[in-house]
Amino acid sequence: MSLTFTIRETSGAARRATMQLPHGTVETPIFMPVGTAATVKAVPQNVLEDVHTQILLGNTYHLYLRPGHERIRRLGGLHKFMSWPHPILTDSGGFQVYSLNKLRKVTEDGVRFRSHLDGSEHFFSPEHSMEVQIALGADIAMVFDECTEWPATRERARESLDLTLRWARRSRDYFLAHAQEVPWYAELAGQTPSLFGIVQGGMYDDLRRESAERLVELDLPGYAIGGLSVGEPREHTRAVLAATLPLLPADKPRYVMGVGYPEEIVEYAAMGVDMMDCVLPTRAARHGLLFTREGRMNIKNQRYAEDQNPPDPACQCMVCQRYTRAYLRHLAMAQEPLGGALNSIHNLYAYLDTMQSVRDAISLGTLPELLASVRERAIARNHDA
Amino acid sequence: MSLTFTIRETSGAARRATMQLPHGTVETPIFMPVGTAATVKAVPQNVLEDVHTQILLGNTYHLYLRPGHERIRRLGGLHKFMSWPHPILTDSGGFQVYSLNKLRKVTEDGVRFRSHLDGSEHFFSPEHSMEVQIALGADIAMVFDECTEWPATRERARESLDLTLRWARRSRDYFLAHAQEVPWYAELAGQTPSLFGIVQGGMYDDLRRESAERLVELDLPGYAIGGLSVGEPREHTRAVLAATLPLLPADKPRYVMGVGYPEEIVEYAAMGVDMMDCVLPTRAARHGLLFTREGRMNIKNQRYAEDQNPPDPACQCMVCQRYTRAYLRHLAMAQEPLGGALNSIHNLYAYLDTMQSVRDAISLGTLPELLASVRERAIARNHDA
Repeated sequence: MSLTFTIRETSGAARRATMQLPHGTVETPIFMPVGTAATVKAVPQNVLEDVHTQILLGNTYHLYLRPGHERIRRLGGLHKFMSWPHPILTDSGGFQVYSLNKLRKVTEDGVRFRSHLDGSEHFFSPEHSMEVQIALGADIAMVFDECTEWPATRERARESLDLTLRWARRSRDYFLAHAQEVPWYAELAGQTPSLFGIVQGGMYDDLRRESAERLVELDLPGYAIGGLSVGEPREHTRAVLAATLPLLPADKPRYVMGVGYPEEIVEYAAMGVDMMDCVLPTRAARHGLLFTREGRMNIKNQRYAEDQNPPDPACQCMVCQRYTRAYLRHLAMAQEPLGGALNSIHNLYAYLDTMQSVRDAISLGTLPELLASVRERAIARNHDA
Repeated sequence: MSLTFTIRETSGAARRATMQLPHGTVETPIFMPVGTAATVKAVPQNVLEDVHTQILLGNTYHLYLRPGHERIRRLGGLHKFMSWPHPILTDSGGFQVYSLNKLRKVTEDGVRFRSHLDGSEHFFSPEHSMEVQIALGADIAMVFDECTEWPATRERARESLDLTLRWARRSRDYFLAHAQEVPWYAELAGQTPSLFGIVQGGMYDDLRRESAERLVELDLPGYAIGGLSVGEPREHTRAVLAATLPLLPADKPRYVMGVGYPEEIVEYAAMGVDMMDCVLPTRAARHGLLFTREGRMNIKNQRYAEDQNPPDPACQCMVCQRYTRAYLRHLAMAQEPLGGALNSIHNLYAYLDTMQSVRDAISLGTLPELLASVRERAIARNHDA
């Protein structure tokens, strides 16, 4: 598995590192924009580059259903298909099967589910998830897990983590046997993708510990913490991270899936998280919610109707350099497609710029001050949203 | 009225000219992308610049309803509002009142109509249309006309052209008295917008002649031919243009409203038209229709599912430089917003590049060859669309 993770500097539990992957080097801590259907909704790839996107997340479930992983394989893999020559991580499909399918049926072998597009029946096993991810050709693939729902009883969480561990082993075995089948194997001089494990265990510290310890025995190149952002209170999220992060190997990347708000991604990076992803910056943008240094801004608010300031006067993004709040409000009220696109560009820039600030603060030893100021802003944020 | 039209070269009836306007110089013949609601749908302003947009068309009817011309005036005019520092032309609202309101009521004074947004009642007179266009602050405004429907009897077309001429006089009188009220009057050293007249007359050559001759008496800085692209056969459009264009002053810009397909804009430019506008390149794009050198391409067609060519291999636009037909088809099938945006960018580039070719051909004396090759392509086009 072609992944080299090199820690350059630390500040408390936080680390600044580089992660070399077949399609390029990623500086961590990093936020990964979500490109569900081979596109970060409404944002062209050159603009993703402009806002300094280093690595994208692709959704295996969506790409499997449309346009289909075999088609993407025939077209040279996801990088070529979507013209994104930089690193890509794919999830396993487990989370979407969980969140988009109320009638899914889980057995030891895998999950039977119905397409949210046309109701057709499908089956994902750990082996099939690996096959799909290898066809897509991500730089980093994820083991097929069961995302434990919240709330879950202790018994349910234990059963679920046991299943996830058995699936992790099956995922790894299939992945190791087939990793060379990625579409770019020959082109990139025999480099191969890497497989990350996923810690589950609900909101139970001891189950998280057990999940982490048994998962680490698989000796994978990176580890994720899953089963968060499923509706639980923020304190639970933080507690699970605090309990779990120290159990993951310090010399390997740690990825928290599906988080978070701007203040959270800074806080989690300070706790030692290296990678995060979330649809929030783009999904919120399409609903007119902007993340600014002055707080969250619902751009549809009447108060912005004649406001000639940029969304965030201190922001250097192309949107804040050219457009006013009044104009973005007009686009949102008129449901013009340009509105969601510009809001998405600003929010992605804000997230990626925040992570650049985190990396700089780690180098400068000023992470505590950054964290304090981000928390203060989060508290002082206006109540638009 | 601050407009200087300078003919540089001619080729038959076609002319290559420059048109100096308060917000910049436009090279003609030119195609004007349509920015209905202060946005060319789905395309950011920097990309409009990238595809060499020289002048945008704004829709008075839409902007009057939302966000409102008084608001745009308070925000410094349409150029500032939408961050488009280059020339803008606004229509009079007459065409939208005609096309979006089945229950409109026309009197000598003006038109009573209902908003397509909320059903509220509104009234446009020639004076009010001028007031709105001056508040928006376009470089070129259009007289308030009645767009004669098709088909129309001779009596109906005559009545309508008479009304349009009376309204043209009222438009001019109000415009001349208030042109200095544009938001940028002081900032641009006392320059003022220009008002163009509109020839009507249905599909009757003699009525078109009468309309043109009486309109020219108003001595306006430019003249448009309206009442076309209202459902009439293509031959009628061409016949009306052939009958009318020679009657318009040779030393002033001639604008044909609401046209056309790529082969038409070349043909009309060859007939002596200087300016054209149409929603076609962007509206068609949102439905997956691409204009290429190989013909019209319905990108949703199954045949493109694994086609790794760019939409138009000979096109230099940013879309053709980066994306494949297979990817654009996927975006269209998945109804991803990026699909409509990328298709729009390609089509606008294709239209504006076509007009650059026309200007070059006028200079080089090769316009007949260009016209022949465009016609041939139009005939040979595939039948996707």
